[in-house]
Amino acid sequence: MSTFTGDHRPASAREAAAGLEWLARTGVPWSAEPDVIASRRLDRSGWEPPGSPSGVAFPRTVADVRAVLKGAAETRTPVVPRGAGTALTGASAAGSGSVVLDLSGMNRILDIRPADGVAVVEPGVITADLDRAAAAHGLRYAPDPASLELSTIGGNVATNAGGLRCAKYGVTRDAVLGMEIVLAGGELLTTGRATLKGVAGYDLTGLFVGSEGTLGVIVSATLRLRPLPAATATIAAYYPDVESAAAASVALAEARIQPVLAELLDQATLDAIDPGLRSAGSALLIVQTDGDQAEAAHAAEVLRAGAVSVQVSEDPEPLLYARRQALPSIERLGRPLIEDIAVPRSRLAEAVRRIGVIAARHDVRICTVAHAGDGNLHPLIVAGSHGSPIPEAAVRAGDDIFALALELGGTVTGEHGIGVLKRQWLAREAGPLSLDLQHRLKAVFDPLGILNPGKAL
Amino acid sequence: MSTFTGDHRPASAREAAAGLEWLARTGVPWSAEPDVIASRRLDRSGWEPPGSPSGVAFPRTVADVRAVLKGAAETRTPVVPRGAGTALTGASAAGSGSVVLDLSGMNRILDIRPADGVAVVEPGVITADLDRAAAAHGLRYAPDPASLELSTIGGNVATNAGGLRCAKYGVTRDAVLGMEIVLAGGELLTTGRATLKGVAGYDLTGLFVGSEGTLGVIVSATLRLRPLPAATATIAAYYPDVESAAAASVALAEARIQPVLAELLDQATLDAIDPGLRSAGSALLIVQTDGDQAEAAHAAEVLRAGAVSVQVSEDPEPLLYARRQALPSIERLGRPLIEDIAVPRSRLAEAVRRIGVIAARHDVRICTVAHAGDGNLHPLIVAGSHGSPIPEAAVRAGDDIFALALELGGTVTGEHGIGVLKRQWLAREAGPLSLDLQHRLKAVFDPLGILNPGKAL
Repeated sequence: MSTFTGDHRPASAREAAAGLEWLARTGVPWSAEPDVIASRRLDRSGWEPPGSPSGVAFPRTVADVRAVLKGAAETRTPVVPRGAGTALTGASAAGSGSVVLDLSGMNRILDIRPADGVAVVEPGVITADLDRAAAAHGLRYAPDPASLELSTIGGNVATNAGGLRCAKYGVTRDAVLGMEIVLAGGELLTTGRATLKGVAGYDLTGLFVGSEGTLGVIVSATLRLRPLPAATATIAAYYPDVESAAAASVALAEARIQPVLAELLDQATLDAIDPGLRSAGSALLIVQTDGDQAEAAHAAEVLRAGAVSVQVSEDPEPLLYARRQALPSIERLGRPLIEDIAVPRSRLAEAVRRIGVIAARHDVRICTVAHAGDGNLHPLIVAGSHGSPIPEAAVRAGDDIFALALELGGTVTGEHGIGVLKRQWLAREAGPLSLDLQHRLKAVFDPLGILNPGKAL
Repeated sequence: MSTFTGDHRPASAREAAAGLEWLARTGVPWSAEPDVIASRRLDRSGWEPPGSPSGVAFPRTVADVRAVLKGAAETRTPVVPRGAGTALTGASAAGSGSVVLDLSGMNRILDIRPADGVAVVEPGVITADLDRAAAAHGLRYAPDPASLELSTIGGNVATNAGGLRCAKYGVTRDAVLGMEIVLAGGELLTTGRATLKGVAGYDLTGLFVGSEGTLGVIVSATLRLRPLPAATATIAAYYPDVESAAAASVALAEARIQPVLAELLDQATLDAIDPGLRSAGSALLIVQTDGDQAEAAHAAEVLRAGAVSVQVSEDPEPLLYARRQALPSIERLGRPLIEDIAVPRSRLAEAVRRIGVIAARHDVRICTVAHAGDGNLHPLIVAGSHGSPIPEAAVRAGDDIFALALELGGTVTGEHGIGVLKRQWLAREAGPLSLDLQHRLKAVFDPLGILNPGKAL
């Protein structure tokens, strides 16, 4: 990033060659250096867009974003907004002829108002940074995607990110009260409100959440903060099979217990972490509660039914260790394709079992980790070695998993979104009428089709 | 309703006179009897639409709704969807040339799936009936608008209804997972999902929630149910002034306590209920928690700071009695205009105090009840006697209250919606860019402008 060329000098021959005179004229810092482009053209999906973007803009202010989008509209240049690039769907991958709008530099926490229970942030704020800043006031930002130390609030909002504790505290959507959005032509739109409640007009805020940068660019967000719990209890229970573990998570709900998180690891995952765990059980359920000791004791009692062993701890880390080791362990076996489906909670065990059948059918290894509290499964397909082409068998297994999700009354994405990779599956899930309406909504906000084209729909 | 004319007989002279041959041909039960029309042309806002609707349709099935909307599109007949007619904004008032679509007959709870934590209902189900049905499974439907014994789920969803316990458990929006919607031309759209989590495509579900019947007609909803709490504790604390009461509600948040409800009654309200209460204090804060006894004790301790008196009870009814008496007591003083604004929680005391100034300026009586947990105030303006014209002073006081909400960084409606009465205030709050986008969204779904025209925007 040595070559920011944001001064107002006349367009150079190289800018002209790249067709970026307009970007140079905005005065917004930008670069067309190959290494800068290379570091910002992909996300974590493994999807390779055709060609490379022409340049990367580094806005520092709302005015910068407006200038870039105005220039992009005038020149019909596709713009790919980007936070940390942690999307797993191709949503932030940028192809030929586009300009990447890197919002990671707009990373100020503008305001934390403890008495109001809200924070106002720029889109490039790292999710965990906001959570830590809120903690200083006895509050927290509840949504906690696994990427929270890397990913940005803007990206979280653009994908309606989930996480572990959304079982109790909701997904990103539930935390967003209002936003400032730069529209495709550079106009600045304010949506929502600064209050905890409000119903004035259509819910534009909700429409932008999860729209993957295809309707507008988030330049600030007003977010709900919640009280930090006084204490948590964590329970790890091993079961002889995944059916018992899934049944235990349903039993919690039937016992009127709302856990903060309920993470299920199947046998293939346990084997990947440590084959020695097989002696402990074939499925692990990790549950956290943040109520009183009676709630924790009640939860442990419920989980004990059918369990091989149950451990309870006030320190969550030892018991969450296996969960945190899941992805790194699977990555040691090869490159994981991180899939993401959700099913009605009662179908969780059936889903895990049938994913095992799919793995056998295609002769691929699939390890499944699930947010059991809300029926959200992440089957991790071990797809060859890192850097090698993705085997056809892994792709076919993925397709079978999406078909399974729909067959069980679920959805092809619980929390990662559509991006590029799941567009055909969105079409199957939503159907032609819904998809047509969504395209018409896109046209209202982005009539020129320059905002992250080819994504989300 | 003695004259359902839903059989397929040829259109009569009276139908022809009303221009309703098309409705008769649908085979859907309907009536054009004056008393039937009279009982369904108004809501509870006091707003009188110009003229009367031509008829009322009583659909029993999704196919009925589709037939009515198809016929309405063909004949360009405005359709006003209606649940129980409890709107306070004119949203369900129907004027000249329109047909009322009375959905109260579609009132079946189609499914309750405790293991999945969801219910599927028709739009005419009474909110409290669903909550009671869920309770049989140890669950509840959390949103609890004050009208819950009268109002329907369809109406709740169409207005994104709030309530008391949404301070902790969210508003209607947070409970709606998916819907079936009949579009303006009669097509049937499915939105959302049956799972607790899902992010496939734009959030059409959220767009329909709160759209007041202007984008489509809800014919079923898949709703999230939550565990019933094991026990609740209710605390009533009297304070010497409203500032202390509001400060106490903020102190709860700062003590990391998330009450289920936190209701504030100002002095004017207490005077209306019983002038003798003045000796207890000038403001009453009623708080309910549903955690453990330690949480309740902690909440009581926090509320004690600055309080004149504090009472705690495991039986909520005696302490909630004053809250429940507020509206009936004020109604004995005259016809209340029930206003509805929300402000940042830290501005609550200032809002109540300045509403008192507004009351004095216009020489009207205003009693304010607030959902203090989320900064949502209901100033009840005593506007002359029941049935008399609304005094100009009351209207001007209302306008000053809406302007105050905006000045304090709030919204002109926390939970009642826009309807007809607040359209000009929506325009001020949202601004021309947002309003233009909202009109364009309306045009996507209702290009002929026949769905509840003149409402919500």
